[in-house]
Amino acid sequence: MASPIGPEIERLIQLLARLPGLGPRSARRAALTLIKKKEQLLVPLAEAARITAERVLVCTSCGNIDTADPCTICCDMRRDPTLLVVVEDVADLWALERAGVINARYHVLGGVISALDGIRPEDLNLDRLVARAAEPGLTEIVLALNATVDGQTTAHYITDLLSPYPVKITRLAHGVPVGGELDYLDEGTLAAAIRQRTTF
Amino acid sequence: MASPIGPEIERLIQLLARLPGLGPRSARRAALTLIKKKEQLLVPLAEAARITAERVLVCTSCGNIDTADPCTICCDMRRDPTLLVVVEDVADLWALERAGVINARYHVLGGVISALDGIRPEDLNLDRLVARAAEPGLTEIVLALNATVDGQTTAHYITDLLSPYPVKITRLAHGVPVGGELDYLDEGTLAAAIRQRTTF
Repeated sequence: MASPIGPEIERLIQLLARLPGLGPRSARRAALTLIKKKEQLLVPLAEAARITAERVLVCTSCGNIDTADPCTICCDMRRDPTLLVVVEDVADLWALERAGVINARYHVLGGVISALDGIRPEDLNLDRLVARAAEPGLTEIVLALNATVDGQTTAHYITDLLSPYPVKITRLAHGVPVGGELDYLDEGTLAAAIRQRTTF
Repeated sequence: MASPIGPEIERLIQLLARLPGLGPRSARRAALTLIKKKEQLLVPLAEAARITAERVLVCTSCGNIDTADPCTICCDMRRDPTLLVVVEDVADLWALERAGVINARYHVLGGVISALDGIRPEDLNLDRLVARAAEPGLTEIVLALNATVDGQTTAHYITDLLSPYPVKITRLAHGVPVGGELDYLDEGTLAAAIRQRTTF
């Protein structure tokens, strides 16, 4: 039996299926939605994807993804110049910006050191971090890395790397997530929450 | 604080978030994946979406979506000309084609009669179905509609509508889904499975 779908639609489905969160079945559903809402969705998506592909840049200063280089954040003069937040990935930068909890600039490592995945310190955006640590005016570097083994290994590596510079290195607090139930938390988190308890 | 993402990327995220199966958070993840795999994913997607938008057509004969009109299925001479399968949506047509269980042509209604959603018989692709029912050579119309109230209402409506024509109207069997466990089935399905039991 011949494929009931034209090769162009088949190709669209295959590309959508490679997005995180979409499998082959949901990619077909997504493609159908796009086709049915051609003017409102498919045409604008084609255009937005084309424009993004044309204009997207990696900030040479911090590693953020933006359509300007240096990126909007690096150019934002209202941000605290004494603070630099180190993150693994642009997704983490976006998460912190959404939370709107720190008015700092960022440094995106582009990964963490991982023996398992064969990621070495040389593969990360570390040279530029060292250069930034040496810049006058910077007083604190916050290591906002995942609380995983690889994330913490990388945090230790960076702490060693930056030890010659007169800058304070901090990391995110460990503890009970807001809204979290003690019953469901692992022992490591509970231990950290007890150890770092604060006055009420 | 200014948005940390350029307006072009923001727009891409917003469009992706409107796809079924993707929310605001997964759309951001998808956009990041697209941007990181610019050459393998973002550029091809822009191109595939553009080409699909340009070429996609609704088959004037059966209502299927394709890049040809009449569609590939309507033009496929190896399909049984005596059989016509009526489906609600193109997604159902695709599902039946994937299963590869019937070598027939299709008729896509584009919905089902629904008092709740205000969908009347006039809103469906029924005139063309009546015309096809009158064509010589057709002997059986299979109503492959969802086993929902609206689907079954539509099936009854179509049966009435086609009663003047000398064509056999059939519907999909009800019963236990393959791999299904009796314990989890509703009483309606169990009753149908018992009523329509077959010799082993």
